[in-house]
Amino acid sequence: MTTGTVSDTKWVYSFGASACEGDASMRNLLGGKGANLAEMASIGLPVPPGFTITTALCNRYYDNGKDYPQELQSQIQFALARLEEETGLQFADASNPLLLSVRSGARASMPGMMDTVLNLGLNDETCAGLAAKSGDERFAYDSYRRFIQMYGDVVLGVDHGLFEDRLEDKKMAHGLFDDTELSATHLKELVDDYKQIVQDELGAPFPQNPQEQLWGAISAVFASWMNARAKTYRKLNDIPAEWGTAVNVQAMVFGNMGDDCATGVAFTRDPSTGANRFYGEFLINAQGEDVVAGIRTPLHLTKVAREESGEEALSLEEVMPEVFAQLDSVRMTLEKHYADMQDLEFTIQQHKLYMLQTRAGKRTAEAAMKIAVDMAEEGLITQDEALLRIEPESLDQLLHPTLDPNATRHLLARGLPASPGAACGQICLTADKAEQLANSGIDVILVRIETSPEDIHGMHAAQGILTARGGMTSHAAVVARGMGRACVSGAGDIRIDMKTGQVQMAGKTLTEGDIITIDGSAGEVYDGTVATIEPQLSGDFETVMGWADSTRRMKVRANAETELDSQKARHFGAEGIGLCRTEHMFFDADRIIAMREMIMASDTQGREAALGKLLPMQQADFEKLFTIMAGLPVTIRLLDPPLHEFLPHSDDELGDVAQAAGISLDVARQRALRLNESNPMLGHRGCRLAISYPEICAMQARAIFQAALEVAKTSAAPIPEIMVPLAGSAKEIEICRTIIDETAANVFAEAGAKVEYLVGTMVELPRAALLADELAEQAEFFSFGTNDLTQTTLGISRDDAASFLHDYEAQGIYDIDPFVSIDQKGVGSLVKSGAAKGRDARADIKLGICGEHGGDPKSIQFFESVGLDYISCSPFRVPIARLAAAQATLRHKQ
Amino acid sequence: MTTGTVSDTKWVYSFGASACEGDASMRNLLGGKGANLAEMASIGLPVPPGFTITTALCNRYYDNGKDYPQELQSQIQFALARLEEETGLQFADASNPLLLSVRSGARASMPGMMDTVLNLGLNDETCAGLAAKSGDERFAYDSYRRFIQMYGDVVLGVDHGLFEDRLEDKKMAHGLFDDTELSATHLKELVDDYKQIVQDELGAPFPQNPQEQLWGAISAVFASWMNARAKTYRKLNDIPAEWGTAVNVQAMVFGNMGDDCATGVAFTRDPSTGANRFYGEFLINAQGEDVVAGIRTPLHLTKVAREESGEEALSLEEVMPEVFAQLDSVRMTLEKHYADMQDLEFTIQQHKLYMLQTRAGKRTAEAAMKIAVDMAEEGLITQDEALLRIEPESLDQLLHPTLDPNATRHLLARGLPASPGAACGQICLTADKAEQLANSGIDVILVRIETSPEDIHGMHAAQGILTARGGMTSHAAVVARGMGRACVSGAGDIRIDMKTGQVQMAGKTLTEGDIITIDGSAGEVYDGTVATIEPQLSGDFETVMGWADSTRRMKVRANAETELDSQKARHFGAEGIGLCRTEHMFFDADRIIAMREMIMASDTQGREAALGKLLPMQQADFEKLFTIMAGLPVTIRLLDPPLHEFLPHSDDELGDVAQAAGISLDVARQRALRLNESNPMLGHRGCRLAISYPEICAMQARAIFQAALEVAKTSAAPIPEIMVPLAGSAKEIEICRTIIDETAANVFAEAGAKVEYLVGTMVELPRAALLADELAEQAEFFSFGTNDLTQTTLGISRDDAASFLHDYEAQGIYDIDPFVSIDQKGVGSLVKSGAAKGRDARADIKLGICGEHGGDPKSIQFFESVGLDYISCSPFRVPIARLAAAQATLRHKQ
Repeated sequence: MTTGTVSDTKWVYSFGASACEGDASMRNLLGGKGANLAEMASIGLPVPPGFTITTALCNRYYDNGKDYPQELQSQIQFALARLEEETGLQFADASNPLLLSVRSGARASMPGMMDTVLNLGLNDETCAGLAAKSGDERFAYDSYRRFIQMYGDVVLGVDHGLFEDRLEDKKMAHGLFDDTELSATHLKELVDDYKQIVQDELGAPFPQNPQEQLWGAISAVFASWMNARAKTYRKLNDIPAEWGTAVNVQAMVFGNMGDDCATGVAFTRDPSTGANRFYGEFLINAQGEDVVAGIRTPLHLTKVAREESGEEALSLEEVMPEVFAQLDSVRMTLEKHYADMQDLEFTIQQHKLYMLQTRAGKRTAEAAMKIAVDMAEEGLITQDEALLRIEPESLDQLLHPTLDPNATRHLLARGLPASPGAACGQICLTADKAEQLANSGIDVILVRIETSPEDIHGMHAAQGILTARGGMTSHAAVVARGMGRACVSGAGDIRIDMKTGQVQMAGKTLTEGDIITIDGSAGEVYDGTVATIEPQLSGDFETVMGWADSTRRMKVRANAETELDSQKARHFGAEGIGLCRTEHMFFDADRIIAMREMIMASDTQGREAALGKLLPMQQADFEKLFTIMAGLPVTIRLLDPPLHEFLPHSDDELGDVAQAAGISLDVARQRALRLNESNPMLGHRGCRLAISYPEICAMQARAIFQAALEVAKTSAAPIPEIMVPLAGSAKEIEICRTIIDETAANVFAEAGAKVEYLVGTMVELPRAALLADELAEQAEFFSFGTNDLTQTTLGISRDDAASFLHDYEAQGIYDIDPFVSIDQKGVGSLVKSGAAKGRDARADIKLGICGEHGGDPKSIQFFESVGLDYISCSPFRVPIARLAAAQATLRHKQ
Repeated sequence: MTTGTVSDTKWVYSFGASACEGDASMRNLLGGKGANLAEMASIGLPVPPGFTITTALCNRYYDNGKDYPQELQSQIQFALARLEEETGLQFADASNPLLLSVRSGARASMPGMMDTVLNLGLNDETCAGLAAKSGDERFAYDSYRRFIQMYGDVVLGVDHGLFEDRLEDKKMAHGLFDDTELSATHLKELVDDYKQIVQDELGAPFPQNPQEQLWGAISAVFASWMNARAKTYRKLNDIPAEWGTAVNVQAMVFGNMGDDCATGVAFTRDPSTGANRFYGEFLINAQGEDVVAGIRTPLHLTKVAREESGEEALSLEEVMPEVFAQLDSVRMTLEKHYADMQDLEFTIQQHKLYMLQTRAGKRTAEAAMKIAVDMAEEGLITQDEALLRIEPESLDQLLHPTLDPNATRHLLARGLPASPGAACGQICLTADKAEQLANSGIDVILVRIETSPEDIHGMHAAQGILTARGGMTSHAAVVARGMGRACVSGAGDIRIDMKTGQVQMAGKTLTEGDIITIDGSAGEVYDGTVATIEPQLSGDFETVMGWADSTRRMKVRANAETELDSQKARHFGAEGIGLCRTEHMFFDADRIIAMREMIMASDTQGREAALGKLLPMQQADFEKLFTIMAGLPVTIRLLDPPLHEFLPHSDDELGDVAQAAGISLDVARQRALRLNESNPMLGHRGCRLAISYPEICAMQARAIFQAALEVAKTSAAPIPEIMVPLAGSAKEIEICRTIIDETAANVFAEAGAKVEYLVGTMVELPRAALLADELAEQAEFFSFGTNDLTQTTLGISRDDAASFLHDYEAQGIYDIDPFVSIDQKGVGSLVKSGAAKGRDARADIKLGICGEHGGDPKSIQFFESVGLDYISCSPFRVPIARLAAAQATLRHKQ
């Protein structure tokens, strides 16, 4: 079992009242559970004594072909002797047996690994001894049969179903319903049966030697570190295999020795609301698993909670007031000691309290917010610590409706969680119909194979959007997030038949008008109406946002172009607009006609005539934006998408376009055909349009300057930042800049007044990042367009990625969808070097980011490390970005 | 006219028999013409004396608001005095006037700039003096009227049409036809008329002061440096404005003083064939412009040439044997001196020979080859120099049919010169029909909007391919180059109507079956049959290739997959295959069915069954390749294109596929729809297919290994290099590598034999280049796929770029189509850093390039500088690549 020479490495750390060799800081070596047990013991809390075998041994074990170092045995025997001394019991002693629990305990919590073996040390002899000593034969044999089943299952690998079937048979045979109704005799018989099962399955008897049992359990814990479930869990949660697991061996205490015994779990504050009151439940005369397993209904910890719920069974506070007072004092001690809300496990053995675990408690977003604010105000933690306690992503729960967790539901399909929030409504397959129904007050869910800019009005009218295709940054996802509409995208298994108006999901055929519910935070689609809960923003939210704003270095702007979105952005605290996509302004019914006329024009003159019609409309749009964003920067991107995106798909509609443009349908078709592209993402778009059709750029510049001058008459002058999209060279910016500067000079001369403005570029091509120093000579600002930069750097179309993204995540090629969180090694390295080169060439260059990553906390941390000046994201993600930016500032300082 | 303090900068350099301050090495300062005039004078050749004003002055002139430095005047007067002394004439002297020519002369030849003013110094007085001194009044006034016109045009800016009209009027009035028929009186009258024109146009008299004339001409030369034509020319030819132009002022000599005078141009060898014989033409009693203008038909220089042509008018050798002998001796001297074929200008004034210019002569590809080989064999130059003398691109002329330069032609359309060579044939709009007609012996040109892999058989059958869409690396272009078929792509103005079988070009309607001719080297389409010339490879070609092979460092491989292409590649000297695109093997009629069955399969089992049918076919293909490439490396790329490329477009054909796959048309349609992609270039392709469908990778690996083992039985074992396409991370390669290695182990175990093989990757995504060090840990070789790397780095789809590429080149954003010559700053920087990182991680990594840039000399030079091990290109470009690689080696050594 052990080989090699003896080293003096310490593999075993004791804890308990008599000796405490670890503490909470040693989490990496002792695992979370072990470190906290030692910490509790060291501050004098009643912890059953025990010892922890380190995570270092786990690595040593795997590095050496699953062998233990020779010195381990003596270290364990030494710790065991100490344990015997402290408890006054003897391991493997028939008359006064010490029983042990053996549990795994990794650095990070890892459900799905082997967890616990209780009552270890029992055999035929010690069980008899325990019965004699406790005077409770039923208790002793109940413990023994539990031990054989647990050990048989997790250490020996015997199917636990065999034990459970035998237990059921036993109850049936005696007409019993509850385990607790089994008598000592029944349990003795069961122990024999269980031993026989082991013999039959393994061809060897159940091990009677407690030492052999202990080593078996230790090895089983280490073996569980490399089982398939644990590997998968680690991969999904980015936990390195090298972290290893520790093994905690602890003296058993019993909550099941009678009515003066109990066991329970508690939170130091309410994990659901965050309220500063003791929260928890317990069971009299039970072992830990019984609370979790839900065989019996647990009772309230406090009198208040019991009374509020109308429950009659007395609370712990009422049945064991002294023990409760002790527990409440432990609660205070631990919260103060850890300065965080704790999740506790305790056992009461014959009126004596034992603490079995403490760890930071999981909580809802609302609770996290309240606890952080309260603790900061109580002086328990600093404001900075409070900010770091709140998961930015969790704010989404506070801003959008959520599904009522208690509502029943029937899942129809899964897709990507493209835009958070829950929504119910009638299925509607076209944007026009969605708008029409919404106008008559009916809630609709717009269901499309994928959406295009033509669907915007329908998306706006709908409560939520469901698409069969497209990823996290598909058109549907981006627009829905911008609008704050719930969206599930890329639900690949739904089938839409436009002709019949039917949608197939999970074998069920739904028809337009049928009601579904979507959960955009989970990416799920449910049948019918599932109850939802409306968000309510507490005062704590404002407090946290205020702290975040005074902490963060980076500014936060919003990606917005409509009046509504811009107002929403201001409401959520955006400090300007980081991306106004001007093309979105061209899709309104009255504008698309002029836009299409422009596209169909055969010469500059014809284009200019059509642009002349668009000018006053764009100007009016910009005036609204500038008024809302008075005095704040507004980054306006010049026309970006390829022109064919503005053309209709059907021949009928194209006929209308032809008529409006005064050309034949045939000519219109030819022109549409010529605009068609194999890879529109890499096509005739971005500043390439301005290079080919400078008149478009000139019109947009004029609209911007005229609007700015108009707004400046009555309120703070806006500072338009005109952004040249998709540039790959300095020359492209130079050409656009010349058009913009000339237009500015003309407009200013006509008006006899001026406004400040900047001309910059969107860095969204690898070449732009590689040659950022050259580009910076022409650009006064860079906005990193990380959506397109991800598409080009990784060579992945966001609209097509759904087909293999799942395989890529499953096989660990991507840790996370690179459109959700920036690929730091690849795309990030271009952002980093691009920013540095930009600053080299122009020291005061303004650097921002306006891709979807601007709202992702992990990405925001990266942008802080690169030193960007601002981040820009969808209006609904602005609060998340504000908090994430504050955390990034704090972490970066550390 | 001059300002500032006097400096001692030397702005003026004299040349002539008495003083020679410059030489050929001073080309940058004196311009090409000036440096060569000085050089000729310094080696004792008869050059009319003169002086050169430096290019440095040109820059000084522009840097100082078009002012001259004060010391310039005295330097010019000093040089002029020297000139007067050497010629025995006096500038501005009425009785013995010195006349001057003033010409521009930049470092690089720049047609389109102001060129020459002759006879400067003439005014009413000096003209009378010249008449008296020469005893030839007609000569004097003819010179004067020529001067007024030239000076009026290029210096004073008077429309030359005004002078020409007056000349025509004069001839008409007197019933004359030729300029030479004008009498002295006519010419005197014309001089008065011309002076009046100047007076009328400018409101000032024609300058009579020769000094004023001289300064005017000098300033005009400098001014011409910044005219629009010159700027455009420089931009197009990458000539920096800072180079400036020099001004050459030279004593006039006259070839038009009588029948003992002449003027001519000559080449020291035949510029068309390269034959080592004197070649040129001349005119008796004429000025230089007359030869160029073609007013009279020039005569042969040598007797041999005259006799060969059947011309009766005597050659220079016959009419002035002594002067000819002197010229022939000059020819020898100059060729020896410059060690290159020279293009000469000379004038004979009263039996005295003057040399007016020498420069390296332009020549055909054939001549360049012959001259280089001959000169090396004559010991005039080294082998290395010979190699550097031949423009690699020009070899294309030697490998493909060309249009007969003398054939008449009617241009119908222009497109891109996508694949060189000329071809005639019947218009054919479908691949099937092209094949069918070709089988019955009819030459066809396949005309398509764009081609796809389905058209391959038709492209193969056709003489040439014409497409309406697509750039230099579109499918049509790449495949045509690979096959050696002529191709014009992206001819945007042609309209194809598949229904009627008609094609519209240049307002003309052609029908299938009508004959057209395409010139793939020029990107032009002609009506009917235009005569072509078949290529013939001379022994010189083999000699040059041999020298190139012994010189170059980089290996040259070919991109090929068919038997025919591979043989062609070997024939042209390829040293292996750098890119075998396995998907091309799946388009044959018998294979596409199995391929589609594989795509339509709903599970792994179904796919494996279909792949089982493909396995023996692929294996047979590889066996052929390996046999042809016995002992050479063969890089095989795993399946790369998205699966939808293999599906048919029409419903009928899809029906066949459905039937073959045993599924309903509806299911087939659904599956096809799901495979459809918005941006296929960035879609589910490359190694993403192998990740999703490992069985495809396994089948291909098995086919490779089984073929290799089979071939190894009878000939040299091939070394397959298996290439994982479109990887962006090490993990993707690792996953594919595992499949390949496991397959190899199985195949080798089954066969009881092994072959060597490598697994590597195609670096074609920016992320791959950025993380090349990580990739190199999994890849034994990198092949830079610069086509896709250009698409992703620049964000440009090669299939869609045609719509704006023209604007981009016209506006100087791209110097050259980045798909033709690698974008060194952007894409190149990724190749460079990718190569360096690859070597850092794996010192012996094999580095190559297999994009279209592998056949582009400028790109090859870049790849040499980066230190790649090999380049791979279309079979027909292999000779070009061999020569270019040799030149790159030589230049890199320098």
